[in-house]
Amino acid sequence: MERSGLLVILSSPSGAGKSTLARRLMDWDPSLRFSVSATTRAPRPGEVEGDHYYFRDPEQFRIMVRDGQMLEHAEVFGNFYGTPRAPVEEAMLAGRDTLFDVDWQGGQQIRASVLGTHVVSIFVLPPSLAELERRLIARQQDRPEVIAARMQKSRDEISHWAEYDYVIVNEDIEASTEALKTILTAERLRRGRQVGLGPFVQALMREENA
Amino acid sequence: MERSGLLVILSSPSGAGKSTLARRLMDWDPSLRFSVSATTRAPRPGEVEGDHYYFRDPEQFRIMVRDGQMLEHAEVFGNFYGTPRAPVEEAMLAGRDTLFDVDWQGGQQIRASVLGTHVVSIFVLPPSLAELERRLIARQQDRPEVIAARMQKSRDEISHWAEYDYVIVNEDIEASTEALKTILTAERLRRGRQVGLGPFVQALMREENA
Repeated sequence: MERSGLLVILSSPSGAGKSTLARRLMDWDPSLRFSVSATTRAPRPGEVEGDHYYFRDPEQFRIMVRDGQMLEHAEVFGNFYGTPRAPVEEAMLAGRDTLFDVDWQGGQQIRASVLGTHVVSIFVLPPSLAELERRLIARQQDRPEVIAARMQKSRDEISHWAEYDYVIVNEDIEASTEALKTILTAERLRRGRQVGLGPFVQALMREENA
Repeated sequence: MERSGLLVILSSPSGAGKSTLARRLMDWDPSLRFSVSATTRAPRPGEVEGDHYYFRDPEQFRIMVRDGQMLEHAEVFGNFYGTPRAPVEEAMLAGRDTLFDVDWQGGQQIRASVLGTHVVSIFVLPPSLAELERRLIARQQDRPEVIAARMQKSRDEISHWAEYDYVIVNEDIEASTEALKTILTAERLRRGRQVGLGPFVQALMREENA
């Protein structure tokens, strides 16, 4: 059955395993499109333009917002982040799902956008906050004061868990990956997603030979 | 994570494979409870009291309805059918899902009942009406005029497909069984089902060492 594309929102505090889960989901279903955000923040080591982010200066970013090219945007730690709108709409019409790695602000704005009815939102919780801090420190990307700020942001992020359709406590990455796949597979079976159902049922009930 | 039980409504026209799917789902998850309906119709060959139905005379049935013991009830072909309420509530509180094999009238009433927010409803469509008639004839349980009446009831039933959360076109019983399992597994991950999440997140955010 033909279907419309989903907007799959995956949110979690940093270090809860969200990026790994997103990558595994993309490996499982190569038709999934990862939404690349635009940002005004500087690239971190190894980050590639158009792959991890579209790096834009504040003036370019402002123009994109002004011209309605952003599905959502927000300011975090003095930098701007946003989701370019056109690629999401193109994927939806082609029946492809888009995966969004966004924080609660991004999630709220995508849900509130014109595409909100196509959203499936999933929040990934860490098994504990201590574990989260351990992972952030092990990553060795940030200075202690940045880690402290990130832990505060993590608490803020977690406080929004109840806005999401699904919640996964990521105790085991294999089990959490399976849970994500299951959620996507089930959501694709929802009546409203299967765009060909109406005509199919009409044809079914018009059958002459029955 | 502890969770509350679901009310899983499975509806379809007769012959679309619903009973087979229900049985396979029960085999897959023995904790699933099958809701046994009460009815005033006479037992068919092989039907067992308390297993297929609770067979009740019209006066007994009327008293059950009057005393609020029925979650829903309806009249079909001059017979009454209804769902006893207490076992459903007990299962829910114990975190067990109940599977309902009911028609659209039953589905509507369960959805409209006090337990309606716990409902997940799935409609099973046949690939064609001709195939449906063929299966009804092959079953050799009914006379031609009963089959004609059942086909009319099938059309009525199908006309209510759009009231369900999920729709499965049962072209292949294996694939449809997998789809059902996936829907149940995903629905159990919904935020609102996981009753322990609130306290878990509160404890998470109170962690001292993070």
